[in-house]
Amino acid sequence: MALFSMKLENLQKLFLKELRDIYDAEDQITEALPKLIDAAHHPELKHALQEHLSITKHQISRLDQIFQMLGEKSTGESCKGMKGLLKEGSDMVSAGGDPSAIDAGIISAAQRVEHYEIAAYGTVRTYAKLLNQSQMANLLQQTLNEEADADNKLTQIASTVNIQAKAA
Amino acid sequence: MALFSMKLENLQKLFLKELRDIYDAEDQITEALPKLIDAAHHPELKHALQEHLSITKHQISRLDQIFQMLGEKSTGESCKGMKGLLKEGSDMVSAGGDPSAIDAGIISAAQRVEHYEIAAYGTVRTYAKLLNQSQMANLLQQTLNEEADADNKLTQIASTVNIQAKAA
Repeated sequence: MALFSMKLENLQKLFLKELRDIYDAEDQITEALPKLIDAAHHPELKHALQEHLSITKHQISRLDQIFQMLGEKSTGESCKGMKGLLKEGSDMVSAGGDPSAIDAGIISAAQRVEHYEIAAYGTVRTYAKLLNQSQMANLLQQTLNEEADADNKLTQIASTVNIQAKAA
Repeated sequence: MALFSMKLENLQKLFLKELRDIYDAEDQITEALPKLIDAAHHPELKHALQEHLSITKHQISRLDQIFQMLGEKSTGESCKGMKGLLKEGSDMVSAGGDPSAIDAGIISAAQRVEHYEIAAYGTVRTYAKLLNQSQMANLLQQTLNEEADADNKLTQIASTVNIQAKAA
């Protein structure tokens, strides 16, 4: 959290505040994902998380582009929501137990992260449209689509992993 | 966080762990909502949050029913994800500024909460089905539908509030 938090004077200011929040969230995800990749057992899950790490880096560079268009520095503002969500993921790993049940727990935590991002990017995409920033809206829509795809892929992997965890 | 965290031995254990997480999340929401209701300016937003507080209490009683069916005590396990998400909501309020921009910020934070719940209830509903607990799955599906409705209602209110915030 910045020492002097931004006052919400209008939608433009809120847009910037939300972008800084997402920027920090993506940064936290980039830091947390390698540990989840290491901890995941199912090869498809490992691969999906690895792929998402590389997609996240592209998403960060889209945010960099947007900050540049806005004439603002690319900096984040401590995203408390993501901090808690990622802690839930690491708690699943440290709980220990059956490999498939841990994988199911990782998927569950990762889907909460995806849904956070779906809500967050949906919001800033809408703000960008309202602020007549169609190029920014397009960039944010691309990321939003990727987050929805990632969520669907996790649901698909869960359909195998959950059955294995049931039989454990 | 419980002192002795539950080991993820199988899907049944994970199901219980997730239910405890959601139970605590709902409890935190019940505590946080009155402050957001007070802080909201737009009458439709105030009303939607008030309605959601009453719906949340029903959702908690559904979880109580499920714990009873499972022969387990109704207790939560500190939900770190929700703690961070609700802190984001209170930060929006304390940031200060234009009433419509604050309302837009409250909606944005509330939609992150809804999406958390959509992910969480979607997951436990799927676990309940796999564990052949159709009655529990039905109860959880009812809550899931309510969360999706609440999210849609917030999107609808945002369409007015965001335009006012743009003009601020």
